[in-house]
Amino acid sequence: MNLKNLIREVPDFPKPGILFYDVTTLLKDKDGFGTVIDTFEEHYSEKRVDVVLGIEARGFIFAPTVAYALGTGFVPVRKPKKLPWKVEAMEYQLEYGTDRLEIHKDAIKPGQHVLIIDDVLATGGTAEAVTKLVEKLGGTVAGLGFVLELDFLKGREKLTNYQIQSLVHY
Amino acid sequence: MNLKNLIREVPDFPKPGILFYDVTTLLKDKDGFGTVIDTFEEHYSEKRVDVVLGIEARGFIFAPTVAYALGTGFVPVRKPKKLPWKVEAMEYQLEYGTDRLEIHKDAIKPGQHVLIIDDVLATGGTAEAVTKLVEKLGGTVAGLGFVLELDFLKGREKLTNYQIQSLVHY
Repeated sequence: MNLKNLIREVPDFPKPGILFYDVTTLLKDKDGFGTVIDTFEEHYSEKRVDVVLGIEARGFIFAPTVAYALGTGFVPVRKPKKLPWKVEAMEYQLEYGTDRLEIHKDAIKPGQHVLIIDDVLATGGTAEAVTKLVEKLGGTVAGLGFVLELDFLKGREKLTNYQIQSLVHY
Repeated sequence: MNLKNLIREVPDFPKPGILFYDVTTLLKDKDGFGTVIDTFEEHYSEKRVDVVLGIEARGFIFAPTVAYALGTGFVPVRKPKKLPWKVEAMEYQLEYGTDRLEIHKDAIKPGQHVLIIDDVLATGGTAEAVTKLVEKLGGTVAGLGFVLELDFLKGREKLTNYQIQSLVHY
């Protein structure tokens, strides 16, 4: 199945000059969505994964489904002040300024192997921050899986210590 | 399995006097998370569901997983200006002021049966707005499923035309 055919290209979103890859057309296609989840599941079915981690908001669409397919639990990483209990936080650089992500302190037990699933690997700033959060809690990053990767942004160079799987490349 | 035992009660979040039901402790438990998804799946496995709809952000955790378990596609409803293509929008009342939800105009085909899955049924304002969006696009609401329902807020009274399934009641 050619997943690229199911991804809609929207010019000038969110601002002029940016070509946005819209996965909603893939998500509503049961075979496309099923193929995405099954491909991640097959890649990790023989590896140790104790829990799957996803990042608000679009990462929440894919990561819990992979967790279910693998038979593991799911851990959310959220924007500031959304998680109700004690959190660890990590700041990371944006093009202009910084952003901050949070995880519950009891989300990962020391020694657990954590698979990180997100929709897009772009500059890699978010993914790098999340690997640090996992390690701060004593977890091991089992790998990172992305539905699509924007190769020209070279996010992979920030993640050289980790196994990366991307299903579609631009 | 008693799902209530896996839901953490956090007092005074997001503000003093509010008791928050934290499902992250349920999500990280593979048996708890699996039971939630399987219970929705079993309830709808013999009914017609063409697509499952979820609402940003916490609804994205459960709805796509139910879609995968049922073998259907997934449709996101998002906050304003997040969806890149042409949208239908619906405003709804909050305690103070209004909020707005958007769906892609091509997310649902006329005649499709749409299952709405969300984490919490509270006042029902969001759920009611989403049923209107589904019907505006020519879809039929197959039912609404919630992980937990706050009975004392009587959200169900806004949704009397629909089948509602809630797994945990407070």
